Amino acid sequence: MYVVIPAGGSGTRLWPLSRAAYPKFLHPLTGDSRTLIQSTIDRLASLAPPERTFVVTGGAHVAAIARQLPDLPAANILVEPSPRDSAAAIGLAAAIIARRDPGAIMGSFHADHLVRDEELFRETVRLAERAAREGYLMTIGIAPTAPETGYGYIRWGEALAVAGTFLVQQFKEKPSRPVAEGWLAEGGYLWNSGMFVWRCDALLDELARQQPELHAGLVAIAAAWDTPGGEEALAAIWPTLPKVPIDIAVMEGAATVGRVGTVPGHFGWNDIGDWHTIGEVLGQGRGGNVVLGGDTARHLAVDTDNVLIVPSGERIIATLGVRDIVIVDTPDAVLVCARERAQDVKKLVDLLKEQGRSPHL
Amino acid sequence: MYVVIPAGGSGTRLWPLSRAAYPKFLHPLTGDSRTLIQSTIDRLASLAPPERTFVVTGGAHVAAIARQLPDLPAANILVEPSPRDSAAAIGLAAAIIARRDPGAIMGSFHADHLVRDEELFRETVRLAERAAREGYLMTIGIAPTAPETGYGYIRWGEALAVAGTFLVQQFKEKPSRPVAEGWLAEGGYLWNSGMFVWRCDALLDELARQQPELHAGLVAIAAAWDTPGGEEALAAIWPTLPKVPIDIAVMEGAATVGRVGTVPGHFGWNDIGDWHTIGEVLGQGRGGNVVLGGDTARHLAVDTDNVLIVPSGERIIATLGVRDIVIVDTPDAVLVCARERAQDVKKLVDLLKEQGRSPHL
Repeated sequence: MYVVIPAGGSGTRLWPLSRAAYPKFLHPLTGDSRTLIQSTIDRLASLAPPERTFVVTGGAHVAAIARQLPDLPAANILVEPSPRDSAAAIGLAAAIIARRDPGAIMGSFHADHLVRDEELFRETVRLAERAAREGYLMTIGIAPTAPETGYGYIRWGEALAVAGTFLVQQFKEKPSRPVAEGWLAEGGYLWNSGMFVWRCDALLDELARQQPELHAGLVAIAAAWDTPGGEEALAAIWPTLPKVPIDIAVMEGAATVGRVGTVPGHFGWNDIGDWHTIGEVLGQGRGGNVVLGGDTARHLAVDTDNVLIVPSGERIIATLGVRDIVIVDTPDAVLVCARERAQDVKKLVDLLKEQGRSPHL
Repeated sequence: MYVVIPAGGSGTRLWPLSRAAYPKFLHPLTGDSRTLIQSTIDRLASLAPPERTFVVTGGAHVAAIARQLPDLPAANILVEPSPRDSAAAIGLAAAIIARRDPGAIMGSFHADHLVRDEELFRETVRLAERAAREGYLMTIGIAPTAPETGYGYIRWGEALAVAGTFLVQQFKEKPSRPVAEGWLAEGGYLWNSGMFVWRCDALLDELARQQPELHAGLVAIAAAWDTPGGEEALAAIWPTLPKVPIDIAVMEGAATVGRVGTVPGHFGWNDIGDWHTIGEVLGQGRGGNVVLGGDTARHLAVDTDNVLIVPSGERIIATLGVRDIVIVDTPDAVLVCARERAQDVKKLVDLLKEQGRSPHL
């Protein structure tokens, strides 16, 4: 199969480490020295060799990605001239792959997810691949472990022919807490991880049906891609493409006509969305204090509990009489945030934008 | 009169800004650009001209003091070869001044105190000066405004001949909270500010009576001071001097024989002892967030209350969902501390010492 990594978004909830110019997938955030995008590629390496692996990203991140992923062929970094959301990004990869290998299976995986049991993850993807061969647009669902309100949900239904795969009845928007609790009690719901597996031609067929303009543009770009006029075609057509997320452009509509399947995943998944989550992952939910990178000498603590420290350089962070906070040190900004408010770090970034303080964004 | 400023101590409760190599009196901490020692000298300038003003300090701080106080004659910075506590430091200045001007009145004032009403402060000192002429060792008492447990207390008694001055009955150690509350209710107690005014010969007489060894050493150093052998005498004798605070060496014993007087001060006094206190002083007790130095653009705040920010360089400090804390940013360390625990910052410094991390001390 082919692997596609759409690497976009600035990860504003992980400010001040994650910046527009150096977003979260370029940082090591899971306790070892590998960055999120390196870990993502590592995890998928046995499913697709480098020449069948693609990263779709903005021009600002190409150099960093090229250095972090030295085995990835340079031509496999697809550079978006401007951000046009995920349907265009993922669709571009699908159209280019389909032009070279029409019946190819492709999986799309975010650059910033964490997976605990990597072997089980790959088995899940292989199961999705088998159902994708039958023409289904497959999504990796995540068996929910809590009534999360930060994720979309998938309602799954009857079993498909490939054992362990199921038809998707409906995609659900992020729910309120009581609704999420109801779904968890009721069963039959999965978190929408945004990881997909499909035959490129099946995706393009659905794109043609639901998003004919987007489809036509992507096919035209792909037709010119390996020719001398490729760059020109991309520059001319890309800015005209509809800006829409893949879920809305394709998946929701495909589900209503019975073309979407899912594999419930039990491999331990996290989208590394905010600092509190990173603290939970690093501390394995045991509480206590955690230092990202593991250099506990960076943290000088007296009467301190459940604090996540993200150090920078050689500076030390000292805490006294505090608990349940996150402290993120960077060369030009320090964040001190209540863990329960980690979802709102975006508000600080919004404030910086309002104040026009772009060096800190 | 003469003014003497013993400038010692590293101010560990104001770590990480205050360091052994650059203690608190060298920093601006009261909201304007003047450092604590500069404000101290400013406040006393109309009581004594530069040539009658002395600073006693360690060799490590002489250069910084010389630069911060350009009008102070270089010879008036008395350099202790090693720390021998306040009786030796203050006594050295008294012995040197007495040798030149035996009946001189001298006032000793810490380098790191804050005074709200400076004119009232000077009037208080002038009152003390008048009683000191009568031979009393005068101390500036502070009319207590709260049952503080961090200060020593003075029990005052009958009025002296100079109106507004009183005999000191007894010095009291730092009390427990209930004891302090009792004293406040009872009345008749003042905080011991550690500010003294006396005739140099009266102090030396008491030193001779209570601390003959210290007295003999200081007199010998002073006798050699303005001679070619001065430096040698200091180097030889200083290390042999008893290491004892002036309160214990002289004041407590002098009080028991009726030689200590006090002027109750109502000028608004603060010893700038810890970060919480600085936050109170800067915020004028009104709560809310305060940025030391006043550059509020350094603090990016969402849902933040009663936070003191001490910024460093161009870095910004962002806070979200936190309250009642102090954040101190320095080039090599960041402190995040509960305001109610500000007195315990010393514990972090102790930890650094234990760990042998002297670059951060």
